[in-house]
Amino acid sequence: MEDKKAQIIHSAIQLFQAKGYGGTSVRDIATKAEMNVSLISYYFNNKDGLLRNIFLLYFEKYFQTIEETVFKHSDKEDSEFIYEYIHAILSFHAKEHVLSRFVLREMATDTQLVRELTATYLMKERQYFISLFHKIPVQDTPAIPDRFLLLQFKSMLIMPFLQAQYAREVWQLFPNEPYFVDRHTQVIMQWVTKTWVLPPKQRLKVAY
Amino acid sequence: MEDKKAQIIHSAIQLFQAKGYGGTSVRDIATKAEMNVSLISYYFNNKDGLLRNIFLLYFEKYFQTIEETVFKHSDKEDSEFIYEYIHAILSFHAKEHVLSRFVLREMATDTQLVRELTATYLMKERQYFISLFHKIPVQDTPAIPDRFLLLQFKSMLIMPFLQAQYAREVWQLFPNEPYFVDRHTQVIMQWVTKTWVLPPKQRLKVAY
Repeated sequence: MEDKKAQIIHSAIQLFQAKGYGGTSVRDIATKAEMNVSLISYYFNNKDGLLRNIFLLYFEKYFQTIEETVFKHSDKEDSEFIYEYIHAILSFHAKEHVLSRFVLREMATDTQLVRELTATYLMKERQYFISLFHKIPVQDTPAIPDRFLLLQFKSMLIMPFLQAQYAREVWQLFPNEPYFVDRHTQVIMQWVTKTWVLPPKQRLKVAY
Repeated sequence: MEDKKAQIIHSAIQLFQAKGYGGTSVRDIATKAEMNVSLISYYFNNKDGLLRNIFLLYFEKYFQTIEETVFKHSDKEDSEFIYEYIHAILSFHAKEHVLSRFVLREMATDTQLVRELTATYLMKERQYFISLFHKIPVQDTPAIPDRFLLLQFKSMLIMPFLQAQYAREVWQLFPNEPYFVDRHTQVIMQWVTKTWVLPPKQRLKVAY
């Protein structure tokens, strides 16, 4: 049973990637998965239900990765902890690169489903990022509102996977390879240690 | 004549945004633009032709912005020049935010057209970025390949516009407003001055 569900999801992701969500029909998915259309209806109701299922599956895995990392490295010192945290998120995206690219692209559309998911999952992610951010030592540097830095942080984490083709063709970087993950973690860490330092007043701003 | 072309493009962008490229038909576009389908065929051949036209229009405007900025600020000192350069690109994205979001999202798909555009326009952009990069003073810092920094640079420039909804709903930041453009330029400049400094050997690597 679970195998069939997984098979439908796998076929759907491939078709959505190649033809876009709007350009793919339930019939296309059934054909690719070598299954009857009625089975898709049975499991997912319709195409929207299938998309929702893919999103939920993705975010559950994503938060599981973060939570496991936090648990596993909780006794490490701050900068090491942050390194492991970033590395785990990038490894997740690298491992799930096809799914990740699809989800990140779909999250850039303006639909009811995306708004719902943003309100739940991305607000949860926000809390995780703020917690991480609070691990950074306080210093006196030019005051820039934290939200801009957190947006920049998010950009760095997802951009190579969302624009994988750009990374590959323009810079010959392959975001799904372990080498990329390691180096990109280092580059983000360099940014963290050099620019993620804010005066105490600024740091509080983010929690409103 | 040009008005009608512009009207078709405008309607197409709105529909592509709302329903996706695959989910929009030429008939939908004709209905929205209040025009006969045959006129779309006359100007753009088909839906692919229309998409190509939108991309070309966008990139022409984009490079015009960069070129004008380079020309206008060529006598400024390096850090000021870089500031104006970043500010001009962000202003362009803010001004064209609907079109920008659409093009950036479509560029994340894997089609023949996207590959072609990457090979021409994004390789041209690459050259511009490398030239800008060479304005940064050389210092001794941990060696990280430039390509990673340039990928990071690109991420920062486009991400808020591509994930505009995320910026808005999660961080209450509004990328199409002048305030955002000014502050985001400052944040990127902070990153440039603090992490964009590499030993000479590393800097050459990018030009191979």
